Amino acid sequence: MSSQTAAPQLTLYTVGTPNGQKVSIALEELGLKYKTRKIDFASNEQKADWFIKINPNGRIPALVDESRGNFAVMESTAILFYLAEHYDPNHILLPKDANARSEVTQWAFFQHGGLGPMQGQANHFFRYAPEKIPYGIKRYQDETKRLYSVMELGLQKDGGRDFLAGEYSLADIACFGWVAAHNWAGVSLDEFPLLDKWLHRVAARDAVKRGMNVPDPNTLIERDFKVPDDADKKAEDAKKWIHGDKDKK
Amino acid sequence: MSSQTAAPQLTLYTVGTPNGQKVSIALEELGLKYKTRKIDFASNEQKADWFIKINPNGRIPALVDESRGNFAVMESTAILFYLAEHYDPNHILLPKDANARSEVTQWAFFQHGGLGPMQGQANHFFRYAPEKIPYGIKRYQDETKRLYSVMELGLQKDGGRDFLAGEYSLADIACFGWVAAHNWAGVSLDEFPLLDKWLHRVAARDAVKRGMNVPDPNTLIERDFKVPDDADKKAEDAKKWIHGDKDKK
Repeated sequence: MSSQTAAPQLTLYTVGTPNGQKVSIALEELGLKYKTRKIDFASNEQKADWFIKINPNGRIPALVDESRGNFAVMESTAILFYLAEHYDPNHILLPKDANARSEVTQWAFFQHGGLGPMQGQANHFFRYAPEKIPYGIKRYQDETKRLYSVMELGLQKDGGRDFLAGEYSLADIACFGWVAAHNWAGVSLDEFPLLDKWLHRVAARDAVKRGMNVPDPNTLIERDFKVPDDADKKAEDAKKWIHGDKDKK
Repeated sequence: MSSQTAAPQLTLYTVGTPNGQKVSIALEELGLKYKTRKIDFASNEQKADWFIKINPNGRIPALVDESRGNFAVMESTAILFYLAEHYDPNHILLPKDANARSEVTQWAFFQHGGLGPMQGQANHFFRYAPEKIPYGIKRYQDETKRLYSVMELGLQKDGGRDFLAGEYSLADIACFGWVAAHNWAGVSLDEFPLLDKWLHRVAARDAVKRGMNVPDPNTLIERDFKVPDDADKKAEDAKKWIHGDKDKK
């Protein structure tokens, strides 16, 4: 924890996706004020020169900390660790005890390297791919289910846990938006009762509700995680910029 | 850094893949003694009950620290952070300065969430999938190239860097095995001269050479990163347990 005297000045570059929501939820949990700058995927703004200077990977979210010399942070979960380092004196995101902190870190990497990318690929083949490729749909939906089963196992630990690493932490924040969007990937939680309870437990937090509405109002929690009625139209609209972006690479 | 009086007792459960090599390289860089337990993919040992107790995700690598109450760590990059926390008094893996540490963390998550999973999918569709699916091959080889271009951009920072976050760190260790295996994914480094120099720079380190030989002798560096002559046979052998594993899930 740095000794910050003035209130931090933070700008979050984001879109209302699970990776973007991670950071807005964390900022809300910490009670921090921040500016939000929505990135326009339709015009490929995430690949614009000015944004590549902030995040060379050309993806959302990114955070710029104006109160620390415009320090720029890429990669959603690295942003959570940055916030923990500088703005989490009460250890809401990251516990003080080294073993507990390692458990949080392990689940954070589990999300960042498994749940996020694999459920992302399920979304791609199930919702966005220009051709229907059954092998791709099955591969990634199966892997998403397997990863949910790992979380289910994690929640059974110590005779039953409320949160992935025991206490609520950035591990839960990192995973929440992805598990909340399970129906978008065409995967059900029916086989994972502890994960389903965890999802509702995290969703009940005020900071989570607020963070989900950044940068746009979001009704996923109110809909009890069902896909919207116009899901097919939303996927068609997204396809336009997804494949447009691809052609430009 | 914990104050360790006796030498740590560590067991690494691993296979000679980029994610496994990450940890053996880090252990060698720190000059730590450790036991190695090779996991047998062919008999699906990574899903055995005894191993699931160590790593609920059923994947390699995993580390057990017998000197700290048999504390078990899953997720390759979380293991690197664990080693940094407890056994890196000279800040070889992770710098002391908060901004430098965040840069390392950002590249570590870049590897863990992008380079690893996406190059892994390129391997799958290019080498292992039971059907040839041109869409899958192109999608993941293109994304791997794009991620290499992000690293190339990172190495241009500050007028040219030797390592991803400036000084050598766990960020380079995390990425090394993946970039070293570019030919296995069918991707060339021809368009990425700085990344190619970085690859050879990291490969020249004695600890990296030693770590690459865990748990089995590995000649990738000696072959200057070319695939072995029997690559097709190796892929055929791997297919057997990959698809066998899948059926058992």
